[in-house]
Amino acid sequence: MNDAAIDLPVRRLGLGVPGDVALDRCVAVEAPVSVEVGGIAYAVMMATPADLEDYAVGFALSEGLIGASADIRRTDVQPIEGGWALRLWLTTERNAAALERARTRVSESSCGLCGIANIEEVLRPLPPVTAHIGTDRIAIAAALTALDAHQPLGRATGAVHAAAFCSPAGAIRLVREDVGRHNALDKLIGALARAGIDAGEGFMLLSARCSYELVEKTVRAGCPMLVTISAPTSLAATRAAAAGLTLVALARPDAALVVADPQGMIA
Amino acid sequence: MNDAAIDLPVRRLGLGVPGDVALDRCVAVEAPVSVEVGGIAYAVMMATPADLEDYAVGFALSEGLIGASADIRRTDVQPIEGGWALRLWLTTERNAAALERARTRVSESSCGLCGIANIEEVLRPLPPVTAHIGTDRIAIAAALTALDAHQPLGRATGAVHAAAFCSPAGAIRLVREDVGRHNALDKLIGALARAGIDAGEGFMLLSARCSYELVEKTVRAGCPMLVTISAPTSLAATRAAAAGLTLVALARPDAALVVADPQGMIA
Repeated sequence: MNDAAIDLPVRRLGLGVPGDVALDRCVAVEAPVSVEVGGIAYAVMMATPADLEDYAVGFALSEGLIGASADIRRTDVQPIEGGWALRLWLTTERNAAALERARTRVSESSCGLCGIANIEEVLRPLPPVTAHIGTDRIAIAAALTALDAHQPLGRATGAVHAAAFCSPAGAIRLVREDVGRHNALDKLIGALARAGIDAGEGFMLLSARCSYELVEKTVRAGCPMLVTISAPTSLAATRAAAAGLTLVALARPDAALVVADPQGMIA
Repeated sequence: MNDAAIDLPVRRLGLGVPGDVALDRCVAVEAPVSVEVGGIAYAVMMATPADLEDYAVGFALSEGLIGASADIRRTDVQPIEGGWALRLWLTTERNAAALERARTRVSESSCGLCGIANIEEVLRPLPPVTAHIGTDRIAIAAALTALDAHQPLGRATGAVHAAAFCSPAGAIRLVREDVGRHNALDKLIGALARAGIDAGEGFMLLSARCSYELVEKTVRAGCPMLVTISAPTSLAATRAAAAGLTLVALARPDAALVVADPQGMIA
């Protein structure tokens, strides 16, 4: 966790009462990560520099640059001045498509006239969820209870999100953390792909609010169910229902809200 | 608040205990907002469609597209298929610079070679904070206590962030809410500019984690102090110290952490 957290000297200010204390507080590292595909700068993301190889694979999968981790020929992670470089080298076919994508993206971002084309792009239908698991409230409660012990960075800093992949029975199989909830999920998706674990055989659990991107990433990863600890947005709910994703939000020790369960997976 | 929240039918799942209940849960609306500048699509942002006129001004200020709200000749907010269109018409000079910016952005995003140029762009020095206020722990505690009563959308949905502008004595002068913490702050910055309130005469209070973008936006708005309820990231701390911004994080009823106070503003 050396690159993921640092000790910061701060002054603890008693509110209402006197008693200032100088102390070191552990905070999560947030650093610019330059993602390059085939030698071309693709994006600069702000992320916690841990598990960046997983992040590379998950980012490429979520962006649709690759269909499987085998489409990446080589990944190179290096500290550079001010941040990190994450270099991806794809198969010839995927590389051509990625460069085409980068070109299209450029024209999309300044195509003019009105925003309808861009909004249609954002809201284009997701590939429907085809995987199916059987699970129940006991599994959800078990995963929630177990999550705490799997968040070392979160315990140390109090400022990161965890993304966990859980078996249908609620056992936690993999966890990744990041200052950004989207990055945490991308890292998890990449870690699953690299470990050869089918995301269709379990559910995702996120210690975060459920905005639409988490739904998008979960569906694209082929996972049939997403559980989040905080509240959903309107768009997360409608996108989940349209894609056939089971969405559970505000999952707390005593109750959880089933926002969508189109396949009737939760007994 | 009609466009900002909707009632969503959900099933409340008792965890550990039986007792499912069908109910309506109020959730925050998250919708794509297409920002157009001078007739050219500039960006699609996900935001809560409330106070979008404020958002337009704050977004343009934070992006450096304008220097003051007077640089905007006209703002047009309209619902379109799938989301909202936010159209900005700038003064002739600012419009030319904005289009140049859009062109430069395109070439930046695919300049290749390595990520150093992009990371330098992200980490370029901020304009130093020149405003100065005198405040103290009593003011911070007062603002924290008062914030709850100023978050109608947050109370209804439990899933949005609030950004408040406070007087040096801790009185809350303006609040804006959004599903995204950056949007909430942009809305607040726009609202201040539209009301003719100098952001240098008070401090920002955010019900959120303090990542680097909140520091950037606060500094660019000319405000000398940022208080956040949750933890800071490493980059937020270093950027604040470098720009001369007073940064207080993890502000809770009993204590707060002074992460940076280069001007010695907190008595």
